[in-house]
Amino acid sequence: MLPFIRSDLAQLTAYAPHPNSTDGKPIESVIDRLDTNESPFDLPSELKQKLAWIYQETIETNRYPDGGHSVLKEAIAQYVNESADLTQGAIAPNQISVGNGSDELIRSLLIATCLGSEGSILVANPTFSMYGILAQTLGIPIVTVGRNSEFEINWVAAQAAIETTDNPPIRVVFVVHPNSPTGNALTSAELKWLRSLPQEILVVIDEAYFEFSQTSVVGELLEKPNWVVLRTFSKAFRLAALRVGYAIASPEVTAVLEKVRLPYNLPSFSQAAAILALQQRHLLLQLIPLICAERAKLTQALTQYSVLKVIDSAANFVYVQTHHQAQHSELLPKLAQQLRCRGTIVRLLSSGLRITVGSAEENLRTLERLQVALQTIESND
Amino acid sequence: MLPFIRSDLAQLTAYAPHPNSTDGKPIESVIDRLDTNESPFDLPSELKQKLAWIYQETIETNRYPDGGHSVLKEAIAQYVNESADLTQGAIAPNQISVGNGSDELIRSLLIATCLGSEGSILVANPTFSMYGILAQTLGIPIVTVGRNSEFEINWVAAQAAIETTDNPPIRVVFVVHPNSPTGNALTSAELKWLRSLPQEILVVIDEAYFEFSQTSVVGELLEKPNWVVLRTFSKAFRLAALRVGYAIASPEVTAVLEKVRLPYNLPSFSQAAAILALQQRHLLLQLIPLICAERAKLTQALTQYSVLKVIDSAANFVYVQTHHQAQHSELLPKLAQQLRCRGTIVRLLSSGLRITVGSAEENLRTLERLQVALQTIESND
Repeated sequence: MLPFIRSDLAQLTAYAPHPNSTDGKPIESVIDRLDTNESPFDLPSELKQKLAWIYQETIETNRYPDGGHSVLKEAIAQYVNESADLTQGAIAPNQISVGNGSDELIRSLLIATCLGSEGSILVANPTFSMYGILAQTLGIPIVTVGRNSEFEINWVAAQAAIETTDNPPIRVVFVVHPNSPTGNALTSAELKWLRSLPQEILVVIDEAYFEFSQTSVVGELLEKPNWVVLRTFSKAFRLAALRVGYAIASPEVTAVLEKVRLPYNLPSFSQAAAILALQQRHLLLQLIPLICAERAKLTQALTQYSVLKVIDSAANFVYVQTHHQAQHSELLPKLAQQLRCRGTIVRLLSSGLRITVGSAEENLRTLERLQVALQTIESND
Repeated sequence: MLPFIRSDLAQLTAYAPHPNSTDGKPIESVIDRLDTNESPFDLPSELKQKLAWIYQETIETNRYPDGGHSVLKEAIAQYVNESADLTQGAIAPNQISVGNGSDELIRSLLIATCLGSEGSILVANPTFSMYGILAQTLGIPIVTVGRNSEFEINWVAAQAAIETTDNPPIRVVFVVHPNSPTGNALTSAELKWLRSLPQEILVVIDEAYFEFSQTSVVGELLEKPNWVVLRTFSKAFRLAALRVGYAIASPEVTAVLEKVRLPYNLPSFSQAAAILALQQRHLLLQLIPLICAERAKLTQALTQYSVLKVIDSAANFVYVQTHHQAQHSELLPKLAQQLRCRGTIVRLLSSGLRITVGSAEENLRTLERLQVALQTIESND
C-alpha cells in the first residue's frame, strides 16, 4: 500500500476501457461496435472538411482555449429552447455549463454537493454506471434502489431511503431519461415523484438520449431551482471522439458548476466542432428518424424469439433480457460471446444485453448473427 | 443559498478566464498576449495541415476516444527517457498517465490523496495558483510557506509545518521546477530537502517548463516511489488549445491516477496532436534556443531600469519586481495597466509582474512600451 493514497481507493478497480477499444490499431471492417450507444455515422465528409479548415485557419494551437465558452453557450441555449419549444431566451446562456463530456459535469455536481461527508447519492439500478463510479472515486456513499418489471424506479423504496438515510443524507438523485441500459423514458408517476422531492435535494435528469426520445423536462427547469438537465454531443450529434457535454440549470447552480470545473476544460477543437454541429443541426439530426425506424425493426425482429424479452426503447439502443430470471446468467453471457465471435460487440450487463441501434446493414448482421448464435448455444446444450 | 451545495463553496470565487481571453472575437493584431506563458508560435502550417488530414482520414468523430491512451503513452515514455538521458525503457508506458491538461492530473492527485479530511497540501508562495484553487474546490486545506529573496522555498518553515500540522496532516507537497511565476529552478538545497521527505508524503514536481530549463528530476523517479513529475504539451510543444498534460510516476501511483480519472478524458484529436508533436519533436523544439536567447535579451534590457528587480529565469517568462517592497503595490499595477493600454498584456500578481517571452518582435514592443509606460507613470506622479 502507498501510505499517501486514500485507504478507501484500494478496493476500487479502474473503469476498463470498453472491449471495443481499438487502442489505435486499425479496425477490421467486419466488426460492428454496438456496445457504447454511439451513432453509427461519422460526420458527413463535407463537415469534417469544414472542421479541418476551421482548425487550420482559425485556431491558434499554441493558445489556451476560450475558458468562458461564450460562443458555444449561446449556441447551446438557442438549441435547447428550440428543442423544447420554449421561446427564445427562456433558457439563457448563463444557465449552461459545458464539460469534457457529461462525465466531467457529473463529477462537478458530485464535488459541489456531497464531498466531505455532506451527502450521499441515490440511483435506481440498472442505470448508467458512471454516477456510482465517479461517486466512489470521491468517497461519496451510494444508495441504490431497484426498478419494477417495466424498469420504472421503485420510488416508494426511493422515498423511504430519502427519509431514513442520514450520516450523510441523500443530497442528489440521478436519473436518465430515457434510462440506460433499459431504454424507458420517465413515466408520469416517476416525474410526479421527482417533482415532489424537497428543494434540499438536487435532481439530475440526464437526457443523453433526448434527440431519440424527443421528450424532455427542460420546460420545467424554470420552476425547479433544484433540477439539472444533462445533455451530450456524443450521441445524436456524433461527436463522441471530441467529448462535449452540457448542463442546463438555474443561473445559481450554473455559477457553482463554473466555480468547480477546471478553468480550461474544453479544447478549442472540441468547442469549434460543437458550434459547427449546432449550426448544422438540421443536417445532422435528419438521421434520427432513420435510427428510430431501425430501432423499431430491430425490436420487432428480436421479439420473434420466444426466449428473449425485449421492451420498447425510446433511445438508440435496445435492452434484451430472458423471460425467466434464471436464464439470464446462463444464456446472456453465451449470447454476447457468440455474437462477439461473429463480429458484433454488444454490452453484457448483469441483468441483460444492451444492443446499440447501428446502421441498417449492421442491424441486419446483428439479427443474422443472433440467429446463428442462438442455434449454436442450443445445439451445444 | 442553495441547500444542496457544500457550504464551504460559497466563499470561493470562480477562477476568471485570463483577461486575454478573446471569447471567440477576432484578435486585434497589435495585442501581444504575454500573460499565460504560451509559446508565441503556432504549429508550422505543414503540421497543422497534417493534423487536419489525420482528423479527416483517420478519426471517426462518432466514436469514443481510445480510453487507454496506449499509443500516446508509449510515445511519451520514449520522449521522457530521451529527454532525461535515460536508457530506453527506464520509464515504461505504465508509468505515464495522461490528463486533460496538467490541471486534470493535479485534481486527480488531490482526489487520490487528501479527500475526506485525510490530508492537507503544502505550497510555497508565490507559486502556480492552480494547486491551491483545485484543493479549495475539493475542500482540502492548504498550508503555505514563503520563499527567500532568491525565491528559494523556506524549507525550514516547510519542514516545521510538516512536523506540526495534523487534522489532517500534510500529505502532498507541490513544487514547480522551474517555479512559476518566479522562473527559478530548484536548487540543490531544495532538492536535498525534497529527497529527505518521508515516504508518507507525496512530492509533486511540476516540470511544465522543462524544455526551457533542461533540468529534470525524472532520473530520480526510479528510486522515489513517492515522487510524481508533471509535464505538459501546452508550452514548448505549442498545444495549449488542445489540453494535454502527463504525469510520470511509479506504476503503483500511475495505477491510482488511472482509477481516479474520467474514463474518456482526452479527445481523439488532442491525442492525435500530441502523438504528432512527439513525432515531430526535433522540428518543434528547434525554437527553444531562440526563446532562451530572447529571454536573455529581455532580462538584460529590463535590468537597465534601476527601479526594477529582475531575476534570472530558467523558463519562458521573466518575473519583475521593484527593489523596495513598498513600491510593489504602487508601481506594478500602474505598469501593467499602462502596458495593457499600449497592447501588451502581462500577468499582474500580488508580488510582481510576470512577462512571457514572446517572439523577437513582441519582446521589442514590450521593451518600447515599458519605456513609455515608466515615463508616463513618472510624469504623472
